[in-house]
Amino acid sequence: MARQERAIRTRRTILEAAGAIFDEQGYTATTIAMVLERADVTKGALYFHFPSKESLAQAVLDEQVPFGTVPPQPCKLQEIIDITFVFGQRLLSNALVRGSVRLTVDQSSPPGVDHTRPFLQWTDHLVEMLQHAREQGELLPSVEPRDTAELVVGGFAGIQLMSRALTGRDDLAHRISVLWSHILPSVAVPGLLLAVDSKPDRGARILASLDLAGDQP
Amino acid sequence: MARQERAIRTRRTILEAAGAIFDEQGYTATTIAMVLERADVTKGALYFHFPSKESLAQAVLDEQVPFGTVPPQPCKLQEIIDITFVFGQRLLSNALVRGSVRLTVDQSSPPGVDHTRPFLQWTDHLVEMLQHAREQGELLPSVEPRDTAELVVGGFAGIQLMSRALTGRDDLAHRISVLWSHILPSVAVPGLLLAVDSKPDRGARILASLDLAGDQP
Repeated sequence: MARQERAIRTRRTILEAAGAIFDEQGYTATTIAMVLERADVTKGALYFHFPSKESLAQAVLDEQVPFGTVPPQPCKLQEIIDITFVFGQRLLSNALVRGSVRLTVDQSSPPGVDHTRPFLQWTDHLVEMLQHAREQGELLPSVEPRDTAELVVGGFAGIQLMSRALTGRDDLAHRISVLWSHILPSVAVPGLLLAVDSKPDRGARILASLDLAGDQP
Repeated sequence: MARQERAIRTRRTILEAAGAIFDEQGYTATTIAMVLERADVTKGALYFHFPSKESLAQAVLDEQVPFGTVPPQPCKLQEIIDITFVFGQRLLSNALVRGSVRLTVDQSSPPGVDHTRPFLQWTDHLVEMLQHAREQGELLPSVEPRDTAELVVGGFAGIQLMSRALTGRDDLAHRISVLWSHILPSVAVPGLLLAVDSKPDRGARILASLDLAGDQP
């Protein structure tokens, strides 16, 4: 294995261990020692990639949005729906995603860690996709892409944490489906309402079709 | 002042101080000493009312739902909308509400503190109101009261935390208004859509009309 490839794998191992510990402990209670033990790497290797706990947390936060990668769809609203379901599935299967989401939604924002970035990145991504959807004639004229994007991002943040608190995220896919059944009639042109798929098992079906379940994006 | 009345006021002073500290520090970093200093009460008085940090956190959590008290409305959907706007206003003005919400949404759930209770209490309250709305013919037949109630509770939790992270909750009333503009068409019978008021300043107007701004429920 080339040195560079090894470095990339080590960095990933550390990030995954850090994500798991941040998920379990939260930012404040997490220590570098816990991450070292979980990742089974040397202190030197960790500090080579991440000079501080803050930089480790920021890297975990910055890994979040790529986990919403989904196959492109002709209907851009369907693709947005797919992002939420696939990301929901990855929350179940991937501790790095869970740690990243915990750092985003927990209130403590230590100096040097910007936990607002995933909110902004998700919103910008969805705004762009909604504009694409508009160009394709998928949206009702009343839709303001930024308002709708922020509602989906904020609403998703809340339903996933309520699902975690009440059922350990067992009912997350159902809650995502309920979210879409409530907001789609205010967003999509009527002709699309029967065509889009927002059933609870949407995310599992996409991941199965990609044979990607459990993989990184 | 009668002894009982004094005890009730002392308990309230402690709860308000604890709410403020939990809001600023989160559960883990909060100490009884911080609460004592903020409340300016004796250790004996605090332990008389709250034998532990856990019992203090639970009491702060259990104070949350009464802050959603609003004047009754002939239209029950309007009353539900009012709850979200008034609670949003109280989040801005009241540190006890903010501390209670932080304890609810932060992931850490220490042994002995049940942070799921506000989610369940809010949901049960909204389910009951939606059933009342249904009896009055306000709801579309497709509405499942529990799904809708959980979406409103979870969605609200998320949009308030995104608003806090991005704008210090400055745009919370706007975000609540956006939530309703997206979900009302899927919930209310068409004839109600023009009659209900979900403008961003709804909460401020209700509180002003009650001359209750800043008061406890």
